[in-house]
Parts: sequence; C-alpha cells; structure tokens
Amino acid sequence: MISRVLSADLPEHIGERVTIAGWLHRRRDLKSVTFLIIRDRSGLTQVVLPAEPADIGLAGEETVLQVEGLVVANPQAPGGAELTEPVVTQLSGPAQPPPFDLYRPALTAALPTILDHAPASLRHPQLRAGFEVSAASAAGFRGTLDRAGFTEIFTPKIVGSATEGGANVFSVDYFGRPAYLAQSPQFYKQAMVGVFERVYETAPAFRAEPHDTARHLAQYLSLDAELGFIDDHHDVMAVLREVTAGMVSAIAGRAGAAVDLLGVKLPGVPARIPEIHIADAQELLARHTGEDPRGEPDLAPAHERWLCEWAAREHGSEFLFVTGYPMRKRPFYTHPQPGRPEYSNSFDLLFRGLEIVTGGQRLHRYEDYVAALAARGEGVEAYEGYLQAFQHGMPPHGGFALGLERWVARLVGADNVRLATLFPRDITRLSP
Amino acid sequence: MISRVLSADLPEHIGERVTIAGWLHRRRDLKSVTFLIIRDRSGLTQVVLPAEPADIGLAGEETVLQVEGLVVANPQAPGGAELTEPVVTQLSGPAQPPPFDLYRPALTAALPTILDHAPASLRHPQLRAGFEVSAASAAGFRGTLDRAGFTEIFTPKIVGSATEGGANVFSVDYFGRPAYLAQSPQFYKQAMVGVFERVYETAPAFRAEPHDTARHLAQYLSLDAELGFIDDHHDVMAVLREVTAGMVSAIAGRAGAAVDLLGVKLPGVPARIPEIHIADAQELLARHTGEDPRGEPDLAPAHERWLCEWAAREHGSEFLFVTGYPMRKRPFYTHPQPGRPEYSNSFDLLFRGLEIVTGGQRLHRYEDYVAALAARGEGVEAYEGYLQAFQHGMPPHGGFALGLERWVARLVGADNVRLATLFPRDITRLSP
Repeated sequence: MISRVLSADLPEHIGERVTIAGWLHRRRDLKSVTFLIIRDRSGLTQVVLPAEPADIGLAGEETVLQVEGLVVANPQAPGGAELTEPVVTQLSGPAQPPPFDLYRPALTAALPTILDHAPASLRHPQLRAGFEVSAASAAGFRGTLDRAGFTEIFTPKIVGSATEGGANVFSVDYFGRPAYLAQSPQFYKQAMVGVFERVYETAPAFRAEPHDTARHLAQYLSLDAELGFIDDHHDVMAVLREVTAGMVSAIAGRAGAAVDLLGVKLPGVPARIPEIHIADAQELLARHTGEDPRGEPDLAPAHERWLCEWAAREHGSEFLFVTGYPMRKRPFYTHPQPGRPEYSNSFDLLFRGLEIVTGGQRLHRYEDYVAALAARGEGVEAYEGYLQAFQHGMPPHGGFALGLERWVARLVGADNVRLATLFPRDITRLSP
Repeated sequence: MISRVLSADLPEHIGERVTIAGWLHRRRDLKSVTFLIIRDRSGLTQVVLPAEPADIGLAGEETVLQVEGLVVANPQAPGGAELTEPVVTQLSGPAQPPPFDLYRPALTAALPTILDHAPASLRHPQLRAGFEVSAASAAGFRGTLDRAGFTEIFTPKIVGSATEGGANVFSVDYFGRPAYLAQSPQFYKQAMVGVFERVYETAPAFRAEPHDTARHLAQYLSLDAELGFIDDHHDVMAVLREVTAGMVSAIAGRAGAAVDLLGVKLPGVPARIPEIHIADAQELLARHTGEDPRGEPDLAPAHERWLCEWAAREHGSEFLFVTGYPMRKRPFYTHPQPGRPEYSNSFDLLFRGLEIVTGGQRLHRYEDYVAALAARGEGVEAYEGYLQAFQHGMPPHGGFALGLERWVARLVGADNVRLATLFPRDITRLSP
C-alpha cells in the first residue's frame, strides 16, 4: 500500500513529517499562498504551499495527489491540523473537473446532471454520506437477524414465472427460453423456512415500473426476512421492530459522522411500535379529515401521512404499523384474519409519512394454496415448484420486505429515492 | 411465537414438561413403542410414544408437529435427552414424503432428483450444512472488510452494455430497449473506489454459460472487493489473504456443527500465501510433468491441480497465488507488469486444485484506457459511463472476485458446484 496517514488521524502527528493521499477537493490560489484541500475516505486535510507552486502545475480539482509534509497545528484548518512544507506527487492522470463544485456544502446541480455524472457526484461528501447510511442499515439488518438465529440465503434472480403478478416484470432471454427477473425472493424465502426456520436475504429485486415517480425504482435492494413457528403476524412485527432498532443503532455506530454531516435526527424506535387496524384507521380518517376512505382496500399517500402525524401526536412514535389490509388487494399467499376473512394478517410499517415495509403471515397448508389460487381463477401449474415446499410440510410462518433505498431516502430526507441509489435504474435511465 | 424449547437446549430441561416443534424427521413403529424423531433448526429430538398412537394418526415424514412432553435423560437419544408422555399437535397440513429418505446419513438420490426437489432435499442435514458454510463465508468476507475500512455497495444488475465481453451475456427487455444482466460489478466497483477508496459487494452475477459443466453456473454469488492507493497487485493479494482467513475463521465460529457433520477439515491460511509467477509455474510444469505449457496464456485444470500439490509439498499450503497471467488473455482494464509488458499485475488464487479467485491491479489513467481499447480495436463509446470515473481522477487500484458457490463446493468436497447452490441455474435448469 502507499504508506500514508488518513486525514482524520493527522492531529495525532503534529510536529512530524507524514504522507497523505487523496483527491484535490479544492484549490485556492491567493496572492502569497496556495491552499490545497485534499479529500480522503476519512475527511479533509489543508495543505499550504507557496504561491504558484511549480510542482503541482495545473492539476485541476479531483486529481489524485500524494503529499508529504510537516504537520502543524492550526485551529482554522479542518481537524485542527494542516500540512506545510509539502512535496506533491500526482497519482492519477490530470483530472477533468466535474460540471459541479464538489467542495460546496450542498450539491446544487439538477437531478439529471447529478445522475448522469454519478461517478463524480457520488464523491460529494453529502451524497456519499447517504450511502454510508445505506451500508450501515444493511449491516444492522443482518446483525440483528444473525443474533436472532436467522440464516442468510442467496436465491435465484432469474425465474421461470412471474412471482408477484405479470404486470411489471422484466423478460430475459434464457438460452432461447422465456424467463423473468425476480420481483422478490418471496417463494424461495418461504421454501427456505422449511430448511432453516428463519432466513434473510439482502439482494436486488426488479420491477418494470412504468411510472416515473420519486419513489419507484426498476431495481432496488430488498431486505427480506421470513420465519416459521409464529402465532400470527404480530410475531413478524416484533422481529421487524428489533430489525428497525438494530438498523438505527448500526447507523449511529458505523455512520455517525455521516449522520452529523447530513444533520439527520435518528428516530427513536419505541419498545412497542403503535399499531392500528386499517378499518380503525379508516374510521379515524373519516372522523377527522373530511374524507371517507372506509371500505377502500389500501391507504392513499395523503392518508399515510395523516396517520403518521397522528401516531407522532398520540403515541410519540415516528413509526406506525397498519394491519389487516383487505385480502382482495393482497397477494394470494396472504393469510386471512381469523374470524374476519375479508381482512388479512398483514401489515405495513409507515415511517415519517411513507410505507417502508410490507409483511404478514402467509398461508402454510398446501390445500389452502390450491383453494386461494382457484378463488383467483388460477391453476397450480405455474406454481408447481413453489408449492412443493407446502406439500412437504410447512409450519405457520410469515415475513417482510424492506426497500433499502426508500428507507434511507426517508431517513436522510432525500425527496427522490434516486438520491439514495448509487446508479439508479428507471424507465428512462440505464446508465451510467 | 409458538413457545417452545429447541432440540439443542433439551438437556437443560430434564425433569420438566416442555414443548418442542419441528418436522417429523423419522417415524419408527415398533411392536410396543413408536419413536418420532423431530428435526428443528438446532438438531434432533427423540419422542417416545405408546405403539399405534391415536393422536398422530397417519402423519407422514416431514409433517410439522408440536410436541409437549416430559424431558427424560437417555444416553441413547440424540443429545442425551428424550421426550416422553407426549401430547402431539399437527401444525402443517399432512406432508407428502419426498422421493428420498431425509433421515439417512447421506442423501443418495441422483443429482437431477435432488435439484428437482430442492425445497425438500435442502432439508437434509448434510445438504443444509453446506449452506450454513455459505452464510458463514459471506459473513466472514464482510466482517473482515468492514474492519479494514471498506464500505458495502449495491450496484445495478441491469446494464446498457456487456461489461466483460459479449459472448456469455443474458439479454433483458428493458422497457422495449435492449439491456443485459451484469456479468460482474467490475466497472461500478472501480468507480466507487473514487468515492469510498475501499468497497465490497456481495451480489448475484450472471453468465450465460453454454457449457454444462460441474463448475459453471448461470447465476452465482460474487464476493467482490476493490481498493485504491495500492502499490501493485500484492496489496490486493494481502487483503485477499485476510479475507480468506476471515472466512475460514467465521466458518469455524458460526458453522462449527455443520463442519463437524460434513467431516470437513478447514484449511490453514498461511501468514503469507505462497506465490509463483505463471512463467515460473510453466517452467516447473515443463521440467516435471512431461508436458510443455510454456507460452500458454492460461493454466489447464490438470496443471492447476499439479501446482496445488506442489504448493502443499513445498510450502505446506492448500492455497497458492499464481501471478502475472499474459495480458493477451486478461480483460482490457488489466494493468501490465512494469518492465515485462506481455505479462500483467494480475493473479488467481488456487485452492485444493481449483481457481477460486481472480484479481489484479487495474489501469487507473484515462489515457491508458483509451489506448487499451484502441489496441483491441474498440472505441470508447460503449464505455463512456465507465470511463467517467477515470476522467475525474482515480488512484492506483485493484481488486478481486470470489465465487461463493465454487469456494464452498471446494471446501465441503462437493463434486458439483450445484450442490453448493440453493436453487441452481444452468443451461437446462430454470426451476424450482
């Protein structure tokens, strides 16, 4: 490795000559002195040179430099120390400056410009910080479930039939045969409950979303969990509560500096997240909003926002479970609510006005699957591989799926989920 | 949750009445007594019933049962304790027995039968154990790199142009436009070195392999890492050495029982894995094997096996780095070996006779990419998004990719990589 000190560790070396390396974040040529700000993965270092230094020539911003110099305390410099008497070496080719200033506190370019130039725009400390939150969230998800006896699985993303309905599925040419990109690992994670009882997967899922909205992506990272031997969906919700707390705690522990930079307030996760049945939620909305959504199969976005405000006011929680969504809008594998079969043992988790997780109890008896498919006018043929698991004995089980990008966007306050996606894919965007 | 004690914890409850739950692994009806072996995620429990018990009726193997009973010490029973005076409740529908006996020590069915019935065959303790090794390997990979300052990334799997050459790429209909499944995250992980310096991804990769071999899959899990500010490929090899040791240690720590069940001997990972340049390896082969591979651009499988035996004999290592593969067979982004430009700063890691990792130093100057593409008769147009990162300043960097299934297959001694893949995809197989 190039032997160097990271920016964040510079204050420990005051009085020593050390080497740093990173990107030329900003160059300021004053009358008698030139300042270089060098950015590495840990932060920024200020380098002080005589005016018009010969050895860095015309190096533009984003050029990669190695700088050997004397560390001097300076309360004005980032981190309280700077590098003087420097010897500068260029490690990259000469950099072309990006079409925006990466050194400004906020990246002010338009969204298409930011996305078209992702390899450069992602270097902006604020954008980058969002992805540290993503990585920490995934680590918190896995860590929480590892401790709870879950096993990680890796399932096929090319499938023979559309798992969640045929409308928004991508077609693949599979050695000349028709195939599809998996919309979710639903069938596989259920089958794996038969093997490991408790499983999770963190993998891409694909939806050919024809709508160009601020919250839909053609590819997203699906954090999936599924567990057996439950009484009902409340056991799944209890695991999700632990996962949510585990993600928030991992973000605080692993991405604390990113959270500070973003000015994000991490949510508290109540020991018990408040819960309301959709029928009761609709009553509440009818009573207080002047609208009457009673009997609707789902909640409108405005109603999700209203309910989150209600939960914050009444229960002091930024999270809210809505349960019992009507069977007619839920997938065929959904378990009905005992005694109230028009409703289901399902739930959504709302956070700061938006649905971020969907889950519930699933059917677990083979004959119930046959009946559920028949009731929707479908045969079992297309689901043969899926139904195998249920022919061979499955316990009561359920699970959930959380879209990583949507969670992170909500948490960091990004108004478009694309800003929480490294290289987003949507109906118009296939590169970079 | 169904309140229950796991099989592995039963010996702590001798003298108490407890509830267990799991699959009917085996049922043995003797003249005066019936034994049920119940399998849960932690192991097996023996339940003793009077002959022809009424309450379990004709429940076949793999039916899910809940059993409440008295825990009694019995040195002959699995774990040294068994359940007597039981009350049995059936939790699943009646199970159809799979076309093989899951209770036998080895799963003796033919490979197609095993794969066609994956939801059932994966329940066999030996097959299942292999996937505990997979999960532990992924955890060890991530944990090692987390500690080394790497950041996890999530990159697109639908791409606008084939990344590693057009021969074995799957086509996707992307909203009416042609697109492809990513053969690797190569270009994205390199771009992300410009953001985080050190990154990894654990995600599916897709190759339309037209050959039906024991070691190729159409989808595999690629454990990818990439890091900047290296001197050359030896820095990458040093990280890979740590990752390998971290995976072996995670397997020992998280999947110890699985390793015991499989009778696997975990390899030692030497502090420094032995290394040989391909030119020297070919000299050695010419001198000792009666064949003359000198000048060949790659190693034949038989030669990889011979070199592994040589490394075991000469260096006491089950791992061997072969470095310097000729440029003409490596991808265009490969960095040449300084002073010997027909060779490259690349490497393969061989383990027990098989190549399991490929990696190396990459080009990092924009003009080198333009020249490398021109030398292969290609323009820069198809690589525009990729080359952006290099226009904006990139440090010397490199990385590697490890195929999880191939590593696990080698480790557990599976003679076909499909046995280390939950639901494999190949030229003939698209389900379950």
